[in-house]
Amino acid sequence: MDFFEVLEKRYSHKERFLPTPIPRELLEKIAHAGLSAPSGANGQSVNLVLLPERDSVQALCDVAHHPGLETAPAAIALFTDAGTQKGEFNFEVEDYAAACEHILLAATALGYSSLWLDYLYLSNEGNRKAAEALLGAAEGFHLRVVIPLGLPDGVGSRREKKAFGERMRWFGG
Amino acid sequence: MDFFEVLEKRYSHKERFLPTPIPRELLEKIAHAGLSAPSGANGQSVNLVLLPERDSVQALCDVAHHPGLETAPAAIALFTDAGTQKGEFNFEVEDYAAACEHILLAATALGYSSLWLDYLYLSNEGNRKAAEALLGAAEGFHLRVVIPLGLPDGVGSRREKKAFGERMRWFGG
Repeated sequence: MDFFEVLEKRYSHKERFLPTPIPRELLEKIAHAGLSAPSGANGQSVNLVLLPERDSVQALCDVAHHPGLETAPAAIALFTDAGTQKGEFNFEVEDYAAACEHILLAATALGYSSLWLDYLYLSNEGNRKAAEALLGAAEGFHLRVVIPLGLPDGVGSRREKKAFGERMRWFGG
Repeated sequence: MDFFEVLEKRYSHKERFLPTPIPRELLEKIAHAGLSAPSGANGQSVNLVLLPERDSVQALCDVAHHPGLETAPAAIALFTDAGTQKGEFNFEVEDYAAACEHILLAATALGYSSLWLDYLYLSNEGNRKAAEALLGAAEGFHLRVVIPLGLPDGVGSRREKKAFGERMRWFGG
């Protein structure tokens, strides 16, 4: 799909997914896209866990429930490895956000809907720790976001955006 | 350009740019791509300042020098507005990283090279404040990254990435 068409089509899918599975090779292609994002000082802090089946996603939903995980046929859990950060600054948040965005766009390019689901884990440390334990996170690896993936069951809603002119201006020229 | 081709072609350009200007409508298209990124709680904290000419970029380079700004014919400065963050969590870093990545990819899709330049401002508050003053940042708006843009003068170098298999694994299935 054309790059700019992908940008137009991406949205946060907050509704149900169809049960249609995602072929493993496409899930891998989406993961590969995520890991192609740049990272601060090339630290490559992002690590991914791929949940290729409804059962895997259900297990994650069972330890910390969210509507976004109720029907998704697949998901990608995104971790950052604090041990990769050797310099003066910590870029884990920048790294994960850039990689997450690559994943959302790649999913869109392949016809899938997706959701940046972080609040569930950010707002409740118990949820985050339960999900990390289930997914077998090693010491120093922190769960940042889970991205449910699948074909949408109907048209997903879109959120309103401010006008372009309100958020940009020219300097010089 | 095809979405996955864009991902393959994007890289951090640390070398010189050609003086060829970027047409304003393409710079606007890149900015529009940046602002189409998702944001935490839809806060849309990202604001952009577009520097469409060599003179604008030189002015920025004059207040805080960086090789990445020495030759670029255009640039985009990315700010976040702290005033947009109303909830329990602050998503400015996630927001700017996702928007920045959209900009880098959109530039690539249009044949331009780019650089995520944050260290210059992150490592030196004086640099950041001088750049913010020059660009006329309002109260509460913080400069996060400047993205020099242009046609590369020669082939830019690429950084090594860890193997895919080192950074992903399957759960279930």
